[in-house]
Amino acid sequence: MGYLMGSNKIIASAPGKVTLFGEHAVVYGEPALVMSIGKRVYVTTELRNDNLVKIVASDLQLPGVSVTFSGDELIIETDYGKTLSAVAYLRGAIDIVSKYLGIFKGVNVFVRSEMPVGAGLGTSAAVAVATVLAYSKALGYDLEKREIARLGWEVEKSVQGIASPMDTSITTYGGVIKVKLLGGNNYEVKELQASTSLPIVIGYVEREARTKDLIMKVKDLMSRHPDLVSNIIKIIGILVEKAEKTLMEGNLMLLGELMNINQGLLDALGVSNKRLSDLIYAARTAGALGSKITGAGGGGCVIALAPNNQEGVEVAMRLSGGLTMRTSLGGTGAMVHSHEPHTS
Amino acid sequence: MGYLMGSNKIIASAPGKVTLFGEHAVVYGEPALVMSIGKRVYVTTELRNDNLVKIVASDLQLPGVSVTFSGDELIIETDYGKTLSAVAYLRGAIDIVSKYLGIFKGVNVFVRSEMPVGAGLGTSAAVAVATVLAYSKALGYDLEKREIARLGWEVEKSVQGIASPMDTSITTYGGVIKVKLLGGNNYEVKELQASTSLPIVIGYVEREARTKDLIMKVKDLMSRHPDLVSNIIKIIGILVEKAEKTLMEGNLMLLGELMNINQGLLDALGVSNKRLSDLIYAARTAGALGSKITGAGGGGCVIALAPNNQEGVEVAMRLSGGLTMRTSLGGTGAMVHSHEPHTS
Repeated sequence: MGYLMGSNKIIASAPGKVTLFGEHAVVYGEPALVMSIGKRVYVTTELRNDNLVKIVASDLQLPGVSVTFSGDELIIETDYGKTLSAVAYLRGAIDIVSKYLGIFKGVNVFVRSEMPVGAGLGTSAAVAVATVLAYSKALGYDLEKREIARLGWEVEKSVQGIASPMDTSITTYGGVIKVKLLGGNNYEVKELQASTSLPIVIGYVEREARTKDLIMKVKDLMSRHPDLVSNIIKIIGILVEKAEKTLMEGNLMLLGELMNINQGLLDALGVSNKRLSDLIYAARTAGALGSKITGAGGGGCVIALAPNNQEGVEVAMRLSGGLTMRTSLGGTGAMVHSHEPHTS
Repeated sequence: MGYLMGSNKIIASAPGKVTLFGEHAVVYGEPALVMSIGKRVYVTTELRNDNLVKIVASDLQLPGVSVTFSGDELIIETDYGKTLSAVAYLRGAIDIVSKYLGIFKGVNVFVRSEMPVGAGLGTSAAVAVATVLAYSKALGYDLEKREIARLGWEVEKSVQGIASPMDTSITTYGGVIKVKLLGGNNYEVKELQASTSLPIVIGYVEREARTKDLIMKVKDLMSRHPDLVSNIIKIIGILVEKAEKTLMEGNLMLLGELMNINQGLLDALGVSNKRLSDLIYAARTAGALGSKITGAGGGGCVIALAPNNQEGVEVAMRLSGGLTMRTSLGGTGAMVHSHEPHTS
């Protein structure tokens, strides 16, 4: 990338995530299953001899952006008059690690993402966690996973004001977690035995509404039909418990079937739309064992479980108008690399 | 049609039907709401001076077929080597009315349908009931609705071996009925106050599976996931009760919303498919207040509530690959006409 790096270069990566079961119901206190995926964010840090923090972010679905800041002054080194929101997470991570360790050193940070930003795949959490890991390691510290996850969460909270620890947990640990809201800002995050890697296809269509709006939409429906909606939410809760067991047993046929039932229930909650529905049924017609919305819906991502026909399912979803990505469920959590691997 | 008719000609008609809410759940003892539609079957009878029964069936989605029978001998008067299954219902109706009244007279029967046969719109029940009405009237009897409905049901049972009284009830009375299975072959049919006429669009795609197979599919899903499926069925039951009230109040927005929730729950039961889903979301995108499968699913009919944009919704469903029909909910039950009306 045109920057010479010394031998004190640290490369860290962290995976994206999908909500496999239980979105929306999680808002009402039911558990959700969240899994890491095979697509990752790579953050490389190299300490400098001055106090500058220099950030180069490429492949974040914007043309390469280079940003330098010192104190509160921000210097954007491209022609484009906008920075990535991801830059805020990088800078936040540097700040929070410095405060936590009581050390600050200038650093060059290079970021590369295999995933789009803002699609609901947890890219910002992966950026935060990978940066926490790389920068702390560059400063000479081997933080525990527990510390990395907590600092990553602090970064998300500092940037967003409010954040769940879900994304930062799953990107730190990888595998599967079960999340449950306990009221207020309290969450319960349970790490499950990481399962074998499951081939999936992720489809993406433009979002018509924000997550917040979709949560409000379900709340509205709940207020008009509490007898129906509260029962649908409860069924999703039962389904998540079954899905947890099924995932641990590795029964993919059954897992796909549960995905389809979950999808119907999300459809009943009114968070699907024509484009999502097109992708979901295209995937099933092409042989996916199951397919559903992942995340809030109203556009965004669809996930299809396709152990035997990943390519065919991907083609079908593209023909139905989606951007697609082949990957797997259950990617390794945040880690340090001796050298940056090639893109999978 | 090339047959001269005397002044003893009787014209009767009976409407088709759609299941508005509760299909599949009805199999498990939950109520279903069934409504007549604005499309009808017309049966004209004219007594003969001999003992022949001559049947001319046109517009039954086969080229005109003319059949004559005397006793058990059947004479097919077209080049086509097949008769309509509808012919069996016509003949059954003549037989059963004759037995009931203790009179037999030869008769010419002309049938015309505004609906396709075998799409799940209750055409065979409409044929049976309209024939019972026309032939009994031709013989000089004014049967009560109750008698007509029962004789129509007898016709369906004689042809099919087994039949629910649902279709023959709704085509006799028109409007709305609430049906509940009581175990064995027992049913409870409750006539509701007929609501105002509601504009709808019916879409049709080829069926991939028979009703029986789809009922088995849901049964299989129930056996694997009783905790999920029995709760989904129960929610549909609650929804049908709400829908009944909503229909009586004439709140179309709410009625559409309930249709969409019912559709999601049917999707969760696994009875939708890509082509049905395409029609359903095309209708909503074009402004339908609600849209759902009507009947067993796996192909067949979709219904869209479109009080303000019937034409646009129809076009959208056609562009998505469906055959369509504009009509209304809540058509008049079986009746005698002084002359045959033009097709609506």
